[in-house]
Amino acid sequence: MTLDKPLTSNRDKLLYTPGPLTTSATVKAAMLRDLGSRDQEFMAVVRAIRQKLLAIGGQTDESLFTVVPMQGSGTFGVEAAISSIVPRDGKLLVIINGAYGKRIAQMASVYQINAHLLQTAENVLPDLQAIDATLSNDSAITTVAVVHCETTTGVLNPIERIGEIVRRHKRVYFVDAMSSFGAIPINLADSSIDYLVSSSNKCIEGVPGFSFALARKEALLATQGYARTLALNLLAQWQELEKTGQFRYTPPTHVMMAFHQALLELDAEGGVPARAARYKQNHDTLLAGMRDLGFRAYLPPELQSYIITTFYYPEHPNFDFETFYQTLNDKGFVIYPGKLGDMPCFRLGNIGRLYPQDMIDLVGAIKDTLVEMNIVL
Amino acid sequence: MTLDKPLTSNRDKLLYTPGPLTTSATVKAAMLRDLGSRDQEFMAVVRAIRQKLLAIGGQTDESLFTVVPMQGSGTFGVEAAISSIVPRDGKLLVIINGAYGKRIAQMASVYQINAHLLQTAENVLPDLQAIDATLSNDSAITTVAVVHCETTTGVLNPIERIGEIVRRHKRVYFVDAMSSFGAIPINLADSSIDYLVSSSNKCIEGVPGFSFALARKEALLATQGYARTLALNLLAQWQELEKTGQFRYTPPTHVMMAFHQALLELDAEGGVPARAARYKQNHDTLLAGMRDLGFRAYLPPELQSYIITTFYYPEHPNFDFETFYQTLNDKGFVIYPGKLGDMPCFRLGNIGRLYPQDMIDLVGAIKDTLVEMNIVL
Repeated sequence: MTLDKPLTSNRDKLLYTPGPLTTSATVKAAMLRDLGSRDQEFMAVVRAIRQKLLAIGGQTDESLFTVVPMQGSGTFGVEAAISSIVPRDGKLLVIINGAYGKRIAQMASVYQINAHLLQTAENVLPDLQAIDATLSNDSAITTVAVVHCETTTGVLNPIERIGEIVRRHKRVYFVDAMSSFGAIPINLADSSIDYLVSSSNKCIEGVPGFSFALARKEALLATQGYARTLALNLLAQWQELEKTGQFRYTPPTHVMMAFHQALLELDAEGGVPARAARYKQNHDTLLAGMRDLGFRAYLPPELQSYIITTFYYPEHPNFDFETFYQTLNDKGFVIYPGKLGDMPCFRLGNIGRLYPQDMIDLVGAIKDTLVEMNIVL
Repeated sequence: MTLDKPLTSNRDKLLYTPGPLTTSATVKAAMLRDLGSRDQEFMAVVRAIRQKLLAIGGQTDESLFTVVPMQGSGTFGVEAAISSIVPRDGKLLVIINGAYGKRIAQMASVYQINAHLLQTAENVLPDLQAIDATLSNDSAITTVAVVHCETTTGVLNPIERIGEIVRRHKRVYFVDAMSSFGAIPINLADSSIDYLVSSSNKCIEGVPGFSFALARKEALLATQGYARTLALNLLAQWQELEKTGQFRYTPPTHVMMAFHQALLELDAEGGVPARAARYKQNHDTLLAGMRDLGFRAYLPPELQSYIITTFYYPEHPNFDFETFYQTLNDKGFVIYPGKLGDMPCFRLGNIGRLYPQDMIDLVGAIKDTLVEMNIVL
């Protein structure tokens, strides 16, 4: 395992965002082919993708767990799950401490799914006792949903401890692991997860175009008649893939070829532990550099994931985020705005084909930008 | 305009299918970049794509018509429209003469949208008098849906004449132009079309990953509260694009870069008329060659589009479609199975980066395959 940055042909701006991310030149080059969606070679790629994703979820027994890719962005995958796995007369407990938890609640609302929202502030972990009490008191709740890494802030929620509670109450457990899967070790069985959703353009370091659900087969098979859409029907999507090896509707063939290559490169890097180590070193390097410049992180270290970090705007009259963003952009560094309502924050992502040296370079560019903006912190 | 085949670096099998299609090497090379989805350059590409698509629909006035890209395959785009444009208490007239008309009916059923189905055989055009009479007799019908080129067979439906009837009855008109848009001239206003849907991997010759709706703005603006999903909400998707130039949820950035390049190449070829001429020559070349070999087309010439052609299996005891398909595949030619229930047919597509010489090559490969299978027609 090496944390050195390899040579790259990529001359685009580097993306310090939650995705789409900077990917390797070889991942992108895997898209330079046109395969038929019913072609044997493509079907073998889909099969390999599904198997490898299961292994990343800590499972190998395909009689217990399975993988369902779904066209569209990560949100399409979350919506496919929410609209397909909650019984028609079911009730959803949504654990919320950020925008993506709220989005799940919004989905429940659109589909008129009865929902109980258990919300904490964006810098506060879910209240485990409240979850336990809610499940004890409300037997109508069939399904519990939580976001693993809330990209809103970068907070990392304790999905294993929540899973223990959900298992004890014998409910179905859904985890949105959009920005954590592939970078933070997750074992579906150990965390009692029935469904986990992530997407192609996050920590596996593929390009955007599809999402995927890892599912406990027994749970999935019990959802006949639950789906509220045609295209986002998770069970029907799985059934066709199992029966024919093909998608019901045209898959993003090129994006899936890139993703297959990305999975090979994840293996070559040393799997999830090695990727986790690189991202963690990215995060540590960035945080130290930003602190040295005088920036303050929004979250306390004990809540902070190494996926994405939220920083307060510096308290200086010359600071203007649009100028800051555009100046960095012009230097080749793409950062990300905040998503905390009126809270004056911005975000820096540590994921994608980025290395500690890229973090040092970003901090250097931010230092230069502050000088150009006449800001002394 | 030239119909000569340019040199290509593409060594993949050629795809004689309804999509994903063979695309140019330069279209695929446009994906060798990572752009942020909120990046100015990417937003400018999205803006250009939307403008160019409107022009292909024969419109330039953005105060009257607009374009809404949607993540996912073509079916996701059709479902976005059907689930977003029919009022909650509306009724849909679905004109059916193939699998894609049936799919629209299936969507109506999933969303419990009241629907009237007007079905003719797969080799019979829609009954215009019946459409007129149905709209006269059923004032509850708010919306009429038809497929332009039914990829099931290759039949081309008279969307302009149906449009006249729909306009006379003042209903909303939806056209699924999935496999015709970009290859068959369509003018939204002349055909009285309120909504048209197509996808990235059809006759514009991009790669799969998104679809798009062309919409009459006045109709779209009237759909507030109609949408039955979150991700496939057409109006909300449009509103965010208009407001910020960005997507609500991660767009397939690489696929959209390829599509932008494909639009430039469509222009360079001479626009829709030139592309139509190439596909028509592909079709004529293929049909003549196949007839010479002794194959019979399923549709009479007057119903047949130049997009895709359905052929009967040859009546010979040695013919086995799987062997035929695999032998051609091994020679580098990917053909397509039929979709006519028990009718013994297969399909050959004329679209994508294919030239008349490719059709001659295919016919030659089919001739060799018949010899290898000991079939004399």
